[in-house]
Amino acid sequence: MGTIEGVLLTPLKIIEGSSGNVWHGLKNDESSFAGFGEAYFSGVLQHAVKGWKRHRVMILNIVVPVGVIHFVLFDGRENSISYGQFQEIILSQQNYQRLTVPPGVWMAFKGMDDQNLLLNIASIKHDPSEAENLPLVNEFIHYKPFLV
Amino acid sequence: MGTIEGVLLTPLKIIEGSSGNVWHGLKNDESSFAGFGEAYFSGVLQHAVKGWKRHRVMILNIVVPVGVIHFVLFDGRENSISYGQFQEIILSQQNYQRLTVPPGVWMAFKGMDDQNLLLNIASIKHDPSEAENLPLVNEFIHYKPFLV
Repeated sequence: MGTIEGVLLTPLKIIEGSSGNVWHGLKNDESSFAGFGEAYFSGVLQHAVKGWKRHRVMILNIVVPVGVIHFVLFDGRENSISYGQFQEIILSQQNYQRLTVPPGVWMAFKGMDDQNLLLNIASIKHDPSEAENLPLVNEFIHYKPFLV
Repeated sequence: MGTIEGVLLTPLKIIEGSSGNVWHGLKNDESSFAGFGEAYFSGVLQHAVKGWKRHRVMILNIVVPVGVIHFVLFDGRENSISYGQFQEIILSQQNYQRLTVPPGVWMAFKGMDDQNLLLNIASIKHDPSEAENLPLVNEFIHYKPFLV
């Protein structure tokens, strides 16, 4: 379990206010900004898992404003120094960071709280032709915590 | 109470899934996309109000993924055909639409549920010099529902 090349975790500011807080997401001059294609939310039910999925082109910038989401990444890029490695990250309002995922890295994530929602500020629009999916249990990604 | 010139409401798709839904936000080829400056969340506590505020440059693209938020807009643009008019919008997962607010339109919003959160995909980065604030009660914006 290490750190995958090109995966970034960026702590984000929370500005407290008496009427409600402001939670930073992404600015266009930050180093992990890779263009704006689309922003969408993905909900994940408690104990449910979405994945595995990887993109050939899209760079993901993920923030978790609601609940607790357990991410597992797997480096499937043969030319990467971290090829074959896993990385685990748990994001929430308590650990409020942005997760940047480069193309070629497999991702799966599990909902840990009653309600769980991520925002993905994606570098390109949704395009099924540039994404691959694999079942949670498959020949080369064996990840015990997600083998429910 | 009418429709303010340049204010857009765009119904958004919700893609249902057994592990959790996907909620559309904004794509870069939609007509209400005005560039990406920054994405941030603003929370508003139940019964609390944020506003009045207007921007001279920023175009706001607002989505409400959590709770119920009651927006009131006031057209302060003297050259607008809807100058001096109010517009009310209530957004939530049940009325899942994107609210686009052009520069020059005053906005205030109130939290209606236990937890309320909006995402603003703003056309420019936060810049206090291009925003103006007014107290909820002021000389020219008298809006009864917010006079708590």
